[in-house]
Amino acid sequence: MERRMDQQLSMEEQQLLVDLLFTQQYAIELISAELADIECGYKQVDAQRYKQLIGLYDRVRAFG
Amino acid sequence: MERRMDQQLSMEEQQLLVDLLFTQQYAIELISAELADIECGYKQVDAQRYKQLIGLYDRVRAFG
Repeated sequence: MERRMDQQLSMEEQQLLVDLLFTQQYAIELISAELADIECGYKQVDAQRYKQLIGLYDRVRAFG
Repeated sequence: MERRMDQQLSMEEQQLLVDLLFTQQYAIELISAELADIECGYKQVDAQRYKQLIGLYDRVRAFG
């Protein structure tokens, strides 16, 4: 199975992408889009993944 | 100086965000938005950062 793109990125490249998410103020929208896909039934994820997403959403939202 | 949000995230949280970027197919748009801000003069960055962004854009674009 071909490795996913995110798994092929260096740590530095991944951190640059995360930095861009906050520089472009898009982190909360990205997480919300994923949660909406799950809650509308477009996407199935296990309970642990859903819990991680909710936790990350709350962390980023609390940061303001 | 208060630490930025991205610096407060755990490695696991950062990897989840990067995974979401590719799951939601938004990585290339995010990098393009930052490059547009720089090229239109809305944002100043040093040459090294600009070079990193161009390199990352080419890597993600080539991945398709």
